[in-house]
Order: sequence, then C-alpha cells, then structure tokens
Amino acid sequence: MLLVQKYGGSSVGSPERIRAVAKRVANARRRGHDLVVVVSAMGDTTDDLTTLASLVTGRERPQDEHPREMDMLLTAGERIAAALLTMAIREQGFEARSFTGSQAAIITDTNHTAARIREVKAGRVREALDDGCIAIVAGFQGVSTEREITTLGRGGSDTTAVALAAALKADACEIYTDVDGVYTADPRRVPGARVIRTLTHAEMMEMAANGAQVMHGRAVDIGDRFGVDIRVLSSFVDDDAADEGAPRGTLITHRTQAMEELVLTGVAPKGGQAKLVLRGLAPGMRTQTVLLEALAENGVSVDMVNESFGGDGRMQIQLTVPEEAASRAEEVLRAALEPLGGGEIAAQTGLSRIALVGNGMTGRPGVYAKAYRALLDAGVEVQGVSTSSISITVLVPAERETEAVQALHGAFRLEQTGAADGVAER
Amino acid sequence: MLLVQKYGGSSVGSPERIRAVAKRVANARRRGHDLVVVVSAMGDTTDDLTTLASLVTGRERPQDEHPREMDMLLTAGERIAAALLTMAIREQGFEARSFTGSQAAIITDTNHTAARIREVKAGRVREALDDGCIAIVAGFQGVSTEREITTLGRGGSDTTAVALAAALKADACEIYTDVDGVYTADPRRVPGARVIRTLTHAEMMEMAANGAQVMHGRAVDIGDRFGVDIRVLSSFVDDDAADEGAPRGTLITHRTQAMEELVLTGVAPKGGQAKLVLRGLAPGMRTQTVLLEALAENGVSVDMVNESFGGDGRMQIQLTVPEEAASRAEEVLRAALEPLGGGEIAAQTGLSRIALVGNGMTGRPGVYAKAYRALLDAGVEVQGVSTSSISITVLVPAERETEAVQALHGAFRLEQTGAADGVAER
Repeated sequence: MLLVQKYGGSSVGSPERIRAVAKRVANARRRGHDLVVVVSAMGDTTDDLTTLASLVTGRERPQDEHPREMDMLLTAGERIAAALLTMAIREQGFEARSFTGSQAAIITDTNHTAARIREVKAGRVREALDDGCIAIVAGFQGVSTEREITTLGRGGSDTTAVALAAALKADACEIYTDVDGVYTADPRRVPGARVIRTLTHAEMMEMAANGAQVMHGRAVDIGDRFGVDIRVLSSFVDDDAADEGAPRGTLITHRTQAMEELVLTGVAPKGGQAKLVLRGLAPGMRTQTVLLEALAENGVSVDMVNESFGGDGRMQIQLTVPEEAASRAEEVLRAALEPLGGGEIAAQTGLSRIALVGNGMTGRPGVYAKAYRALLDAGVEVQGVSTSSISITVLVPAERETEAVQALHGAFRLEQTGAADGVAER
Repeated sequence: MLLVQKYGGSSVGSPERIRAVAKRVANARRRGHDLVVVVSAMGDTTDDLTTLASLVTGRERPQDEHPREMDMLLTAGERIAAALLTMAIREQGFEARSFTGSQAAIITDTNHTAARIREVKAGRVREALDDGCIAIVAGFQGVSTEREITTLGRGGSDTTAVALAAALKADACEIYTDVDGVYTADPRRVPGARVIRTLTHAEMMEMAANGAQVMHGRAVDIGDRFGVDIRVLSSFVDDDAADEGAPRGTLITHRTQAMEELVLTGVAPKGGQAKLVLRGLAPGMRTQTVLLEALAENGVSVDMVNESFGGDGRMQIQLTVPEEAASRAEEVLRAALEPLGGGEIAAQTGLSRIALVGNGMTGRPGVYAKAYRALLDAGVEVQGVSTSSISITVLVPAERETEAVQALHGAFRLEQTGAADGVAER
C-alpha cells in the first residue's frame, strides 16, 4: 500500500517530536507500506523568518513588496524540517531521501506567496520509492513554470500532501496534526463535541470554509476532484492501536453509501463578520453586478449575499464581509451607488457566522425549523441566513456564538456516536 | 565593470548588518558596477543547524552518517541570508534577485559535505545581469552531476565567489570579512603586524595552508588558475574612501612585476601539531610508501615528511600529523612496521608550525640563516623544518609560538610598509 503522510509544524516542533514522527513513519514502513512523507516547517520557524524579513526591510508585511524573495526565504523552513526528519528516519534503520518542492517537481503558477499547483511530476519521488526509499518532501512549496521557487500559501503543506497522493495514485493520505480529528464542534466550547468518524469532501470543505482550522478546504478540494481519501489524525497519540481496528481520527471520503440516514455532520463558527444592508436600490441585475465588481476591484471579499424587494419596488441587498473590511466596503459601495441612483447603507459589525454542515440536508424537512427553534430557545437572535446543498449558515451576534453552537450541537444530538457520521461505519 | 562581492557570516550576522551590506552593494551599483553578490549563512546559523541535527540523530557528527541530508539542511542557511539581503537591496531601490547554488548552476561532483566544483554555468545569473538586476547567490552550495544538493565544505562561500568571478570573467572579486585584510602576522599577538597590501595567489595559499584564517586556500587556488584578482577587505569600515585611492584591504593578484625586490610576505602559525620520528627502518622507497599508505587508509593526514640515514645504513623518517591523530598514527605505523622489519617510534606532541611566506625566497641567500638566528636569539628551539619555493616552515614548541612569530616578524621587518608587499604598489 502506498501511503502519503503529512506532519504539521507542531508535530515536528522539536528534536524530540521529530524523533517521535520518525518512529511513527518507521512503524508504518514495518507494516509494509511504501511511504511519502510531507513535512511543514518546525513550530514557529515561518513566523520567525517573517519577523526577520520585517526587521531587514522595515515593513510589517514584507511579502507584499518582496513576494519572490519571501518565497525563497520561507521555503528554507520546510527544507530544514525535511532534512532533519530524513536523518531521524535513517537512524531508525530505513533508507530515506528528502526532496524540496522543486526536486519533487511540484509545478505551480507564477503567483508568489500564494501559488496554485499546475502539475505534480514527482519523478524523483517515484525513483526513490522504486529504490525502496521513504521519500520526504518539503511541504508548502513548488517551482513555477518560470523556474522560480514558489510557496502555496495557506494550507500549503496539506495541499502538497493531497496533490502528491493524487499524482502518485496513493492508497491513502494521512494528515497528522495536533488534534484527534475533525470535531462536530470546537470541544473547548461545546462539552459534547465528538470526533467525526467519516464525512465527505464537500462536507469537510464546508466545515473548513466556516472556520474549522484542522484542514484547509483547498487541499480537500483536490482530494475531492481526484478521489483521494484523506484521514485526519493526531501525531500526539500512540499509534500501536492502528492495526487493531480502533477508530483513528476522521476519514474524508467519497464513499457515501448510507447518506440518506443522516443529517448533520458538524457545527463550525467563524467570528469577525460584518453585515452591510443596502436599501432603496434601483432594481435589476446591473445594480448588483456593479456593486459586487466595485468590491472585488477593491479587494473586499464578499459572502452571504441576499437580495429582496420592498413594497416600493426598490431592491434591498444584504451581504457579509470580514469585519476589518467593513468601513472600506461601505465607502466603496457608497461611491458605486451614486451613478446607480443612490440608496441607503447600514453596517453592523460584531457578528459571527455559524454553519451547520451535513450532506443530505437538501429537501429534508424540519432541519431549518429545528435550528431556528434551538436558537430561539437559547435566546440567540439570527441576523441573517444562507444555505447551500449541504449547509445552513446563520449570522448571530459574536457574543452569543458559543451559546448558538452549543444549542445547535445539542438540538441535532451531535454528541451521540453515529449521528454525526456522514457515511456508514466500515 | 563586473564585480563579484562575497560577504561572510559575521558581515550578515543581524538585520542591521544585512542592511549595512545592502547599502554597500547599493553604493557600488551607484558607481556604475554590475554586481554579483555571494553570501554566507547569518552568524551562527550553520552551527545552530548542526546542533539541531545532532539532537535529532543523537550523533556528535551527523554529517558522517547523513551527508546528503546535512547538505539539504545546511544550505537553508545561505538561502535565508540570500533572500534577506536581496530584500534589503531592493529596499535601497535597486532590482535584485536571489539564487540558490542549484539555480546559479554551480555544478559539483557528488561528494556530499565537501563537494568540488566541476563547472559554473550561471545562466540565470547572466540573465539577471542582462536584465539590469543585481544577482545574489547563496554561497557554499551547488548541485551535483546527480542533481543532488551539495555543499562545498570549508571555505565554501569564498570558493563560490571566486568560481563565479572566473566563470563570468568578472573584473574583480571582493571578499568582505570582519578584518581589514590579510595581515603579515596575527595582530593580536604581534604588535607590529600590518595589512599586506598586495601578494600573489601562491603566497596567499601558503599563508592559508599555515593557518591564516581570513581566506581559504582553495578559493585562492581557483583564482590562481583562472587569473582572478581577489581583494580581501572589511565590511565593517565605511566604504566612502573607496574611490579616493586609499588603501583598501589586501589584493591577491598575478601581477608580480617587481618580485625580485622583496622577500617575505608574512608569518603564519598553526598549532596542534605532533611530530613522529621513526628510527632504524629498512632503507628504500617501499618502507615510506607502505607507511604513508597505511596512514592514508586510516584517515590520518600527514605533513612535513623528512627522511635521513643513520651511520648504520638504517633509515629515519620524521613526519608531522595533527595532534589529535598522533596516537592513532603511532598505532597504525607500529602495525605497518612489523612486516617491514620493525623500527622505533617516538612521538612528540604540543608543537606548532610557523610558516614564513614570500615569493622570491628560493635561491635568496641568508633567509634561512636570518630565521634561525632570530629564533635562537629568542630562545626558541626548532624541532623540524621544511621548505617550498615560497616558504620556510619551522616546527617549534606550542608554548613558544608567539615569541617565535614575533621574532620572525621583527627579524624580517614586516612592520615596515613596503617590506611585506609581494608586488609593487600600484
């Protein structure tokens, strides 16, 4: 079986942790697996290097002015971790070889600091596997079509791992992190929160888009498109139980045979939201288009757009933006509204969005009602709502976020095993 | 004019130092020069990374067990420094691009941790120069003929700089360090020691081989073979005087038109030596060959070999080895002597070798005599001597090293300007 494993920064945060990871890799090798291991930079390395760049340049965000050089700088972090982990694995008595993103031929576009993967060639990784070696690949990095060193931006190492698993047609992709898996809700805030045993890629993307930090939606998207099963699990627990059929973290998979049984997977809150309500607008597609274009041109990302019509035939638009972009967005919209015939704008900050995620939600009666009832009983006022095929997202005051999450978690009985699993247990 | 500049680890040891180097580079650019800048890892980075590797592997010398991975690890240091320096130069308003050893196409053999340069292609460095960019190259590193990342070992960044200067046919190569240039002797120990204004490559190699740390002989050797003039100077002094004809560091050059006038360039001591005297040996080439082969096979490097014959027709061999290898060498020699008919071995540790370096020494009467007279007057007993065309090396007790250096420095009046310059002032 060909396994791609990825270890995050906290998993390799110290020499001792690196040795622990090496033992885990060696154990998987002893079980007979071929292995490709993707590794992030140790602990705070990336932050430390960014600070160094700030001190050298006198800029708070050196990446804005020096994107190419920031990529050259930051990729050193994963290179260091890859080399050290390779040594530690060799000390376990197994042959291993480290590769940079360039050497692994992770080909990206030329968009420094946030490059997108175009193609994964991985010729030397395949050679290493053919030679019976464990291949260690520096995460988060690639080489552009212009032969420049690039980084993949947020979720980069997860993305490297899943893309490699897709390219190598690996049997599984394991994402090791510092938590036990993907939770139904944040366990620090919701006492009954549980690890989700199985969910679909779409559900995971919805969870990630709504603030679940454990895995980046971008990597899940690649897994979705190439049919890569992804297992999220902790590198901090002993892995001796691995062969004994004990539950191990969260499996993200396409195999959704028992979907109809089930409703909700998890509850994911995301704070720092603002709501803008535009009233008295000239109706018609042109208004919305011009307004959304104005926001896009000014770098404001928009979420949860609703439109409605008042009794006077004028249009109303409601949208959410990140809180820190609220005043900028208001300014941009005001300017854009003028040639459109004007309108009022009201802004409200201090909001959180809470997503209820679950495949099979569409067309299922009572989900909406149950959610609203739970929030009403908890005294949480809903400030807005939007839906997708696999989620309902409500906007609530940020100070009521925890009560809202707990209320929803309880109402859908997510604390009970089985209720939260998007697919049947295997 | 195309200039290659190299900055050592202490020259880029902090964000402030990097900014200072960037200003120096920018000044050279303002003077109209095209520039390639080679940079070492910041301050203690290489030591810190080696310590990390020791902690991960539990080995004192991880490079012995994991040479490929140590190269992957350590090259991150120069990559970081190159990226940061490039940002700092860009902040000065000049276009700059950093390159790793691979990107600069410094092609080496496959000998990890101590690779030799086979060829410098530097295609992307040329492109950058053609685009009007300052090219920053990570020193100490290359890419092997097997596409592996390699390091050049000791003196690696100097070697990168001189090799690039040779490949690009640069007009000059400047090595910036934390001292003012190459001294006639260590100024901390010899009060009259002066910066040598000019010397030949051969003289510099002799100085370096005898412990002058400021520049590695290997880089000088490349400069010698490709006719690259090398200037050694301090990055810690203001460079405003640069265009005013003031003396600037030490120039290492082939232009030796006034050679016959001059005798001695400098005095370089090197401690930690041991002397082995083998007596009563069967005479003949075979004895020496077998003994030297035995030492080589056991990794003992030998220096200053002398042979002589006693009245009984038996041969005597005297050789020096690094002090820490003395007991191992004695053991190896004892075993090797047995099938050769035996012999006695006497070892003496606690010695230093002191080289008097100067082109034009050969055939010049009185140099030897003057050196011995100076040492005799200072009460330093000479334990051995060897010569080359441009040096005399004496072996003295380590505790008398400073007196010996001072005595020789004084006897040859190296404290006087002009006396120590291997070529005419320009």
